[in-house]
Amino acid sequence: MGAQIEQRLAELGIELPEPWPAFGTFVSAVRTGDLVFTSGHVPHHSAGLVTGKLGGDLTVTDGVRAAEFAAYSLLATLRSELGDLDRVVRIVSLLGTVNAVPTFTDHTAVIDGASNVLVAVFGERGQHARLAVGVSSLPADLALEVQAVVEVA
Amino acid sequence: MGAQIEQRLAELGIELPEPWPAFGTFVSAVRTGDLVFTSGHVPHHSAGLVTGKLGGDLTVTDGVRAAEFAAYSLLATLRSELGDLDRVVRIVSLLGTVNAVPTFTDHTAVIDGASNVLVAVFGERGQHARLAVGVSSLPADLALEVQAVVEVA
Amino acid sequence: MGAQIEQRLAELGIELPEPWPAFGTFVSAVRTGDLVFTSGHVPHHSAGLVTGKLGGDLTVTDGVRAAEFAAYSLLATLRSELGDLDRVVRIVSLLGTVNAVPTFTDHTAVIDGASNVLVAVFGERGQHARLAVGVSSLPADLALEVQAVVEVA
Repeated sequence: MGAQIEQRLAELGIELPEPWPAFGTFVSAVRTGDLVFTSGHVPHHSAGLVTGKLGGDLTVTDGVRAAEFAAYSLLATLRSELGDLDRVVRIVSLLGTVNAVPTFTDHTAVIDGASNVLVAVFGERGQHARLAVGVSSLPADLALEVQAVVEVA
Repeated sequence: MGAQIEQRLAELGIELPEPWPAFGTFVSAVRTGDLVFTSGHVPHHSAGLVTGKLGGDLTVTDGVRAAEFAAYSLLATLRSELGDLDRVVRIVSLLGTVNAVPTFTDHTAVIDGASNVLVAVFGERGQHARLAVGVSSLPADLALEVQAVVEVA
Repeated sequence: MGAQIEQRLAELGIELPEPWPAFGTFVSAVRTGDLVFTSGHVPHHSAGLVTGKLGGDLTVTDGVRAAEFAAYSLLATLRSELGDLDRVVRIVSLLGTVNAVPTFTDHTAVIDGASNVLVAVFGERGQHARLAVGVSSLPADLALEVQAVVEVA
């Protein structure tokens, strides 16, 4: 019993990072009833943050990879918050904000980087509603942020 | 019994489109408890999508019409998800993202196009909280997207 | 009994404004179950609205002050909606949209202006999940908007 999602992460070769600290007056997630509302999660990896604008200094491929990193960060927060990722009942919704130049149009491909991670890890429970938009700037020039609402047991 | 909203749609002369497919790794709506979180809904009609930037190639009148189309698409998704629009208890909140040039200021008038549809169709149950913002880019250069949280029976 | 938050506001020297009317087809807040979803709240004070772009005509200090005004407006709406701010169980999440030039990177400092008000007023109950983004335009050229999900008793 339990640890099914941890086993799935291992199968996928995904090693989650440490939960990312909140640099500001907020917390990474809040539970209310059966829902967890997360903060915006950022693309970070062992060498630092992914920064820059899609359609400017970053390619779609860079953006997809950044979205994967942000999804890993989101999972790290959920594991920390819930104790066990098996307690995720459903990824309900995802808001993806892409730091992009005004002519950028490939937000769907970029945020699919995060959505694909969630579906690979959770299967049907990872299928979520989504809004992906292009924003003109993000804190610290981050390439993107993803924020989720999650139903938990 | 039932079909009250269908009758109201007929009175208003509104014919809902087919539910729009999700072009990406996401679904159009997810129910959790008594709430449905929808994906961003796009302005589509029989001739295609409404694309372009408000304050650029699109006028406020174009934007209002696009918001109406997006609201119809949202209703089509809710009907498909719930089986019957009479099961809508309350449109709780609406997020409207308008693809706009930096000098655009008439987001309220544009997103009212969607809000007016919801109130015309559902009456008091259609009165919602709202956030309307201008974004610098959207997938496929869409003119706008609307995303909703809906309480259902 | 009661009036604890009113006493805290007095200690902090915060006098809430009148609830701001919704200029559009929406309402300032909707309750569903134990959650209140608010509309975007704007930075207004006795002399009017704070307008302009961060990184353009507005400094970070201007933005922090605007975020404080928006938080006061949010509190005024919650008091009006709930009758009594002591009924706030938790500020669950905050979405801060900053009207900014594309090179702006200090969104965290700006939206902390709103978050700091909420934590000062509610203590641990005011600690929330957050997403702060830069948008290229806002209705009426507002400097920013904040939108919240709140758990209530």
